Amino acid sequence: MVAEPEPKLSVSITSGFWKRYQTLLYEKILPYQWSALNDEIEGAPKSHSIENFRIAAGTSNGEFHGMVFQDSDLAKWLEAAGYVLEIAARDDTIPDEVRRKLGQRVTEAVAVVAAAQQPDGYLNTYFTAKEPNRRWSNLREAHELYCAGHMIEAGVAVYRGTGDRTLLDVVIRFADHIATVFGRDGGKRRGYPGHQEIELALVKLYKATGERRFLGLAEYFIDERGAEPSYFDLESQSGNFKPIWGPNTRDHAYNQAHAPVREQRTAVGHSVRAMYQYIAMADLAIEARDASLAEACRALWDSTVKRRMYVTGGIGSSRHGEAFTIDFDLPNDTAYAETCAAIGLFIFAHRMAELDDHARYCDTAERVLYNAIISGLSLDGTRYFYVNPLEVEPSRCDESGTYEHVKYRRQSWYGCACCPPNVARILGSLGDYVYRTKGNTVFVDHFLNGTASLSLDSGTMELEQSGKYPWDGRIGFTVTRAVDGPAGIAVRIPDWCDDASLTLNGEPVDVTEGNRDGYVVLHRTWQTGDTLELDLPMPVRMLSADPRIAADYGKVAIQRGPLVYCLEQCDNGPGLHTVTLPESPEFSVTFHDAELGGVTVITARGFISTDEFVGETPYAADRRTETRKPVELKFVPYYAWANRAPGEMTVWVRRFES
Amino acid sequence: MVAEPEPKLSVSITSGFWKRYQTLLYEKILPYQWSALNDEIEGAPKSHSIENFRIAAGTSNGEFHGMVFQDSDLAKWLEAAGYVLEIAARDDTIPDEVRRKLGQRVTEAVAVVAAAQQPDGYLNTYFTAKEPNRRWSNLREAHELYCAGHMIEAGVAVYRGTGDRTLLDVVIRFADHIATVFGRDGGKRRGYPGHQEIELALVKLYKATGERRFLGLAEYFIDERGAEPSYFDLESQSGNFKPIWGPNTRDHAYNQAHAPVREQRTAVGHSVRAMYQYIAMADLAIEARDASLAEACRALWDSTVKRRMYVTGGIGSSRHGEAFTIDFDLPNDTAYAETCAAIGLFIFAHRMAELDDHARYCDTAERVLYNAIISGLSLDGTRYFYVNPLEVEPSRCDESGTYEHVKYRRQSWYGCACCPPNVARILGSLGDYVYRTKGNTVFVDHFLNGTASLSLDSGTMELEQSGKYPWDGRIGFTVTRAVDGPAGIAVRIPDWCDDASLTLNGEPVDVTEGNRDGYVVLHRTWQTGDTLELDLPMPVRMLSADPRIAADYGKVAIQRGPLVYCLEQCDNGPGLHTVTLPESPEFSVTFHDAELGGVTVITARGFISTDEFVGETPYAADRRTETRKPVELKFVPYYAWANRAPGEMTVWVRRFES
Ligand SMILES: [Zn+2]
Ligand SMILES: [Zn+2]
Repeated sequence: MVAEPEPKLSVSITSGFWKRYQTLLYEKILPYQWSALNDEIEGAPKSHSIENFRIAAGTSNGEFHGMVFQDSDLAKWLEAAGYVLEIAARDDTIPDEVRRKLGQRVTEAVAVVAAAQQPDGYLNTYFTAKEPNRRWSNLREAHELYCAGHMIEAGVAVYRGTGDRTLLDVVIRFADHIATVFGRDGGKRRGYPGHQEIELALVKLYKATGERRFLGLAEYFIDERGAEPSYFDLESQSGNFKPIWGPNTRDHAYNQAHAPVREQRTAVGHSVRAMYQYIAMADLAIEARDASLAEACRALWDSTVKRRMYVTGGIGSSRHGEAFTIDFDLPNDTAYAETCAAIGLFIFAHRMAELDDHARYCDTAERVLYNAIISGLSLDGTRYFYVNPLEVEPSRCDESGTYEHVKYRRQSWYGCACCPPNVARILGSLGDYVYRTKGNTVFVDHFLNGTASLSLDSGTMELEQSGKYPWDGRIGFTVTRAVDGPAGIAVRIPDWCDDASLTLNGEPVDVTEGNRDGYVVLHRTWQTGDTLELDLPMPVRMLSADPRIAADYGKVAIQRGPLVYCLEQCDNGPGLHTVTLPESPEFSVTFHDAELGGVTVITARGFISTDEFVGETPYAADRRTETRKPVELKFVPYYAWANRAPGEMTVWVRRFES
Repeated sequence: MVAEPEPKLSVSITSGFWKRYQTLLYEKILPYQWSALNDEIEGAPKSHSIENFRIAAGTSNGEFHGMVFQDSDLAKWLEAAGYVLEIAARDDTIPDEVRRKLGQRVTEAVAVVAAAQQPDGYLNTYFTAKEPNRRWSNLREAHELYCAGHMIEAGVAVYRGTGDRTLLDVVIRFADHIATVFGRDGGKRRGYPGHQEIELALVKLYKATGERRFLGLAEYFIDERGAEPSYFDLESQSGNFKPIWGPNTRDHAYNQAHAPVREQRTAVGHSVRAMYQYIAMADLAIEARDASLAEACRALWDSTVKRRMYVTGGIGSSRHGEAFTIDFDLPNDTAYAETCAAIGLFIFAHRMAELDDHARYCDTAERVLYNAIISGLSLDGTRYFYVNPLEVEPSRCDESGTYEHVKYRRQSWYGCACCPPNVARILGSLGDYVYRTKGNTVFVDHFLNGTASLSLDSGTMELEQSGKYPWDGRIGFTVTRAVDGPAGIAVRIPDWCDDASLTLNGEPVDVTEGNRDGYVVLHRTWQTGDTLELDLPMPVRMLSADPRIAADYGKVAIQRGPLVYCLEQCDNGPGLHTVTLPESPEFSVTFHDAELGGVTVITARGFISTDEFVGETPYAADRRTETRKPVELKFVPYYAWANRAPGEMTVWVRRFES
């Protein structure tokens, strides 16, 4: 009944920037997070996530501990582990010991999860252990469907990675149980989740199993959302309702339940919830060829990316509601820009690329990936940012409640630890986002060194990519296995590159002529051994922000290739808010092998003020801030900040204007 | 036993800027606030303050309603009313009807308060009506001593204004009751208030009555503060303890109880509490000639004014704890700058002037008064700001939780309505701050049109002041009654004025020669009819901030005379954050009689950007923000903002630099 998992593509990352991350994933991140989930990290907030499953299964005494959505931490870890096992199965450079150890842990965790499933298929440790009589009574706050969604994604990934059906069967039973509870037919609850996630998970489950009933349940949740009268209002009037975080004063826009999804045009509310919803909407727009959903998706994309996104690709301007606020309100210092929200935007981008075959979505995905997502992780893989600010002054974070949510050191774990395992699963599944295939065309969406096996209508094409991306824009492609007859290779020309060039077997190709929606499309009969050499020159670019973004006005952000750069105090001293670039700075670019895991450093002459006023107040008339000291400024990639001595950081830098 | 109230000075405001405010006070503000305290304002949060007293007195049924410190709202109103009745008693331009009506209301309110006093002298409606068994059990949160202090201040003021002892006797009995509860001798509680206020009130009560026991009780509260082990910790472990705002996670620095007051050197914690404490410390430093207290006061002054004060004189950088944060952390958009804190700083400044006879304190008092205090009040007297930001974007306040505390319209009342009656009492008592006398010297601390009667060692000197301050810096003084023999008149030369000049009976006086600590001191035998003409030229000044203030870097604030100016959207359009002044702007200055109650308006040519980026993200390379539109900018006094159409406002404006 369950279809064999047949990925349309399989990618092995072989070297370079992302190989380092992938190695970190199995060598450090997953083992570290396993320890965290088992409460073994000294000094870190206790997770209790695994223990909660044992308690719900009745194999351990003790009490549920943690957030109401604590189950999802283990689920995301399992999903990430599934991806790594899938990679390891085809990559023999990964040590057997990794495969064996990780496999054991997955088996152990799956057993614990399976044991916690109730006879009717229900699976949630909070309600099973703590509130057995209140299942589904508080969809708005209790995250039951959110946790269900993450476990479904884990079930699919573990099955893909191991071929073991245990967890997949668990989540199928759970999904079928959920279908008995929610829906439009007689007696069912017409509810939907307070935190979206199950919708996209059900689409995945449909794709993994071929069972359309899961797609139908996803459609129900998406279609029902925002219907009047509000289910959230109704449930809160029920006798069995019990608030979790006290009186809920947020309006339904916080949960994107203020209007039917097809009527939503503006990215509002909790930014992670928004992204997970939009992903599912795009999924269904594709699967069901639903034009009204597709149109809503495009409007929500534009709202998010054109008006509410940081230059790093971070989203969510305020800690209050972890939320979007208004167009162009993008404060750098009080930013939220949660790692999970960036991950959501990355996935949403790829669904939109699938929907529209336009490179602009992948341009943004790349921005998000190289900046807002991996900034969430320390270079050693064991420290995490939840909030990813674009400007930090440590003593302000320590002493002012306004900046309480902003950390200047990554943390070993969080009481609400949604982000760390989310980074793990995105790193584990990165290969899935490098290429897309459609008919007989391969879309190259991202640049990373590796081999790929790609199912086209006319057979399997194999491709190899190599280079030093993101440090160098010269990328080589080799067709290592061709298909019979003509096929297309569509290579994304990044939005940051104005003068890309391409050769085919050494002969120049006109990249403007073949450019369609941001891709250079080469349609021909390929031979094994054909090569493409893409050259994406990477000058240092100074980005200005739309003047409506008050926080960035008069400032520039430095970008090279896909990487946004920043200044750190450990390189440039304190007082970074006074740093000013000349109107036309001369940038030097050097790759430093030994620094920050190997990064290209950018330097330029600029000015810093070390002036201090002496007087009865800190204000003085007819002073200019002209006692500026010329300095050699050193910019490092934003993702690598806060890996050395704690201090100030800024992405946006003043520039003199004439 | 009670001394007759014998003010050392009495000032009548006769015309000009402050006469308008004083008239507003008795014509609009006090009647409006009386209605508010009686819950008669349509659409405003209910005060219940007077009703609570009736409930505590047993003359009304119903339940206590409002904040635990609701009593203080009526107390501050009574204090303000006392001042107005005192003014009215010597100013026959104030209509009899005002005197009669206000007198009736005061009598009525005093009777209600007196009726609520318990047989043992205790007086607090929250505890009497709601928690009779928990008196004094939660000093940290419950504001009992704070409310007591405000009622004491009211008792003194009403006695000064009416000669009626009823409320004074009430508060003497209450103070004597408090002295039986708190202190170091056997069996008493060694507590002190969570919100300072009683200390300065007891000093006032001592001055009004001559009874040293009240001074001693004030000294006890100040001296005991911050002793180890912490009283707040001890009381919270008592069986009778009940938290008011949930688990208290703030540290003792929030209440300035983290160290004995003599060891405090940095302005920390809740800014209103801090100011009220520092006022009492200065009071006691003066009364007891306590050098260690004086030294602490000077350090706390410097900490507040040199490093933690906005250019408007506002203090308190964060809504979180309504608190000071760190040096030079003065965000304009998320500012707190509570009106009450500014009022506290104004009073603290005057105590410091009394202590040290230095004009710098009055320079700051003037900054605070003309900007941060009266910005709290609408021009019509019936709308109030609690928070006084220096930069506002309305839709951000509406939609982002980060700016939730920031209003762009003054409100008709507040659930926590500490600020409105505080403004009333400072306006009512303003005459007390214009002059100081010491020995045979009169200090002229502020400039306002009026007559003054001043007790010197050698008799009563009478002075008259006239001019158009703060719009014009030419101020005339006439000695309308001289004393026998030599006496000093010390005229403050404001810190904003670089080239003041002065004539005595038409003859120039060298202002630099006679300048002592910011005052030009003229010591001579005065004749009735002697005149001084002070000329304080008022060029438009562009203030820069210490570069350590990140929010103001690269920007200027416009000041003329004591007034800080701002830009409003209704004059200049939206996008105020893009407004840029040339390096050397040409300012025009015009008095507009019909605008904003009559203000001097400043105009200058500048630039505004109306550019909007079109693209996939709001970021673009190699763009400058150079599509600037030349505009005629119009600056209005900061205090008058938000009296027209709601919109953006900014104090700090960018300036081109070379
Ligand atoms: Zn997260
Ligand atoms: Zn207040």
